[in-house]
Amino acid sequence: MPKPNLLITTDVVDQASIQALSRYARVFSSTTLDEPSLIQLLPTIDILLVFSWPTFLTAENLSKMSDLRFIQSILAGVNHLPFAQLDRKVIVSSNAGAYSDEVAEYAWSLVLSAAKRIVDFHNAVKTEQWTLRRTLGGKEVTLLGERTLGILGYGGIGTAVARIGKGFSMKIHAYSRKPVRENGVRSFQGDKGLFTVLAESNAVIVSLPLTKFTNKIIGADKLATMKKNAILVNIARGELVDETALYEHLKANPDFRYATDVWWYREGKESLKTTHPFFELPNFIGTPHVSGPSGLATGKPVMFAVENVIRFLRGLKPKSIVDPAEYLVTDRQEY
Amino acid sequence: MPKPNLLITTDVVDQASIQALSRYARVFSSTTLDEPSLIQLLPTIDILLVFSWPTFLTAENLSKMSDLRFIQSILAGVNHLPFAQLDRKVIVSSNAGAYSDEVAEYAWSLVLSAAKRIVDFHNAVKTEQWTLRRTLGGKEVTLLGERTLGILGYGGIGTAVARIGKGFSMKIHAYSRKPVRENGVRSFQGDKGLFTVLAESNAVIVSLPLTKFTNKIIGADKLATMKKNAILVNIARGELVDETALYEHLKANPDFRYATDVWWYREGKESLKTTHPFFELPNFIGTPHVSGPSGLATGKPVMFAVENVIRFLRGLKPKSIVDPAEYLVTDRQEY
Repeated sequence: MPKPNLLITTDVVDQASIQALSRYARVFSSTTLDEPSLIQLLPTIDILLVFSWPTFLTAENLSKMSDLRFIQSILAGVNHLPFAQLDRKVIVSSNAGAYSDEVAEYAWSLVLSAAKRIVDFHNAVKTEQWTLRRTLGGKEVTLLGERTLGILGYGGIGTAVARIGKGFSMKIHAYSRKPVRENGVRSFQGDKGLFTVLAESNAVIVSLPLTKFTNKIIGADKLATMKKNAILVNIARGELVDETALYEHLKANPDFRYATDVWWYREGKESLKTTHPFFELPNFIGTPHVSGPSGLATGKPVMFAVENVIRFLRGLKPKSIVDPAEYLVTDRQEY
Repeated sequence: MPKPNLLITTDVVDQASIQALSRYARVFSSTTLDEPSLIQLLPTIDILLVFSWPTFLTAENLSKMSDLRFIQSILAGVNHLPFAQLDRKVIVSSNAGAYSDEVAEYAWSLVLSAAKRIVDFHNAVKTEQWTLRRTLGGKEVTLLGERTLGILGYGGIGTAVARIGKGFSMKIHAYSRKPVRENGVRSFQGDKGLFTVLAESNAVIVSLPLTKFTNKIIGADKLATMKKNAILVNIARGELVDETALYEHLKANPDFRYATDVWWYREGKESLKTTHPFFELPNFIGTPHVSGPSGLATGKPVMFAVENVIRFLRGLKPKSIVDPAEYLVTDRQEY
């Protein structure tokens, strides 16, 4: 029986991984093929290993991939995949968990920068608007110990965020689809659960996947439910939060803080250009989607993704299979 | 037998605490007395409860306090006390531990802001010098998990810093006078121990008291021993670090980062004015000594200090007695 054909559409996969995959599949790399050869190859490809979605895989070219059975993403999230154009038989696996520890650390850097107002204080001293031990405009630093941390989405990142939160002696509220059974974590489900987590938490970290159910899940009603001096941190996807509702909320509640590493989509792409002037607000911290070091692309995430492709090739059930029905019909691009 | 006389030189002590103290002492408050009455009272005072050192307690006035036996500080550090002018019989207690959890959280906010370059990234996006996912000038965020954290000084703050560090899955190296016996902590003593901690750590937090032994303890030789891309955080006292040596080191090693909440002394007072232009350096983060919320002055630290005074009044040995011989002869002022 011939080996299945695997097409890798990124150059971040190392040689050792390609060798390992070659034991089970004929491995092709789109980065070493010219376009005509690539087009000719598409109908024979069984498996795709992708980082960002490759531009050559337009709807037309994708429709030629009649043998395609499995897509493995190296990025953790898959909301940018063209689910509407995929045949029902295609299994898609995210790379959930591959970036968890790194992103959880980054989430904490945003929580603490916001809690202790590091950016504001640094910039105030730098511009000599400040004197020793005066809190910023009468505002205090926020203490986290013994307070409540809400975690929205309790996957790999959420779990890692909670582990660190326990070190800070915080009470953990987890909002997730499945109940969480873990020491020191209170588990909440459903709409009522989400409102309770938001109402009771001093800091909330959003680590949900972006699906049609979570799109703009943090809107005006949810923000209104939160404590006036709460901290909201987003390391997942910008679109989980309603941009205009957030801006109005930050303006009306100067003690509320939003710190984000992720941004809203403009013309299908994540963009630092926002509709509202967030950077004019002292209660906003924004960084340019850098939670994972770029070196990571060739490290653990590739290893995780390759291991999962090998599971599939060996006839085992791959991990982190996503439900296409949950994802938006969208042309949104990550990376 | 008459009760001893206690003089409180700050208005941050609450009424309930004053009532508690009144069971064991006659309590006077310098903030409610005019200067002549105060001067007349000084020779009868047995105990002082101080926040910052009161300006009326000049060398001359202090010399009148022939009955003085005990000084309790509400501030954690006591390096600003006039030890040279104190009679040998006076016992001085610091308020070590009273701010530990809060300062440890703040220390972590500086470690993470520096590790993830939050201030730099935020300001770069704000001024539109930035695009998505480009690391700053080719620099990466630093991962902390599984790396080594050095803690210089393992008192209340150091211990709280380590507890949080374990949540980040860091290996902990503690440098202290007495050996530390604690799971997950490697203990180092002496000069050789200090050099080892500095050489092996990816991030170092300085939580030492400022004494004549620790003054400028982090000089050029110690900095040279550290990893080129290490993070050094100071939440203790500015003078623990040699200012000029640090500036030269930051200029020569752009991947090395220094984040501080505490500043060097100018004319005897901690000051945001520095000899060198630290804020021009992207690898410097500075905040204006705000690690404890100002509300704290009337909270736990007062409770801790009052409890210790009551220990003394009840004939028990007070906690956190300092050795005057270790402190500098100085007129440095805190607050």
